Amino acid sequence: MTDAPKNSVELVSSDCEPCHSDTPALGPEEIVELAALLPDWQLVERDGMSILSRKYRFKNFQQSLAFARTVGDLAERANHHPAILIEWGSARVEWWTHKIKGLHRNDFILAARTERLYGEREEH
Amino acid sequence: MTDAPKNSVELVSSDCEPCHSDTPALGPEEIVELAALLPDWQLVERDGMSILSRKYRFKNFQQSLAFARTVGDLAERANHHPAILIEWGSARVEWWTHKIKGLHRNDFILAARTERLYGEREEH
Repeated sequence: MTDAPKNSVELVSSDCEPCHSDTPALGPEEIVELAALLPDWQLVERDGMSILSRKYRFKNFQQSLAFARTVGDLAERANHHPAILIEWGSARVEWWTHKIKGLHRNDFILAARTERLYGEREEH
Repeated sequence: MTDAPKNSVELVSSDCEPCHSDTPALGPEEIVELAALLPDWQLVERDGMSILSRKYRFKNFQQSLAFARTVGDLAERANHHPAILIEWGSARVEWWTHKIKGLHRNDFILAARTERLYGEREEH
């Protein structure tokens, strides 16, 4: 068992752990603790599952799509994939773990990495 | 006023028309007539608007994202943009005209062109 990350920098540099279908989803306390490290993300309940969601604003459709590609590269490296809703001027990124029908610590790590990608992008 | 397209080939080769905020949304009869040319698309009601929606299946996340990029290029050329929900194994494309809070003939033309792009893609 690894120690809980104490801030978003520790969260972003945590390693994703293998997740199996018998890995339990995080409980409410752990979720609240980790969600506090990602104040711009919302916890959404959908189909009985908790989902981490953030809508990022962009200047046009191409920038939304470009960000989705960057997040897609992150997802490929982690072998864990979000849902991304691309529209003119926004991209909504949602992380959860289908296999366990809820949130895994990996989802918080990848949300933190998504935040870092957003901060690093060139089009400000 | 242009003649109504009689099949999806005529629809796909129709020119998009300039759309202003005072252009009326299509009425129910016109919608039914045009929707019949796109049997794989669903008419969805959301926030009091009619939306044209289709979920395309793919083998993985990268293929979903690649298709979104192709549709994005189509959207840029037409200067009219859909919502695209990318997930592992699927991309849901939705066309409607925000400016008129409903469906314009252009949305059907672009849905038909989206169908053509899906048929033309390399990863079958």
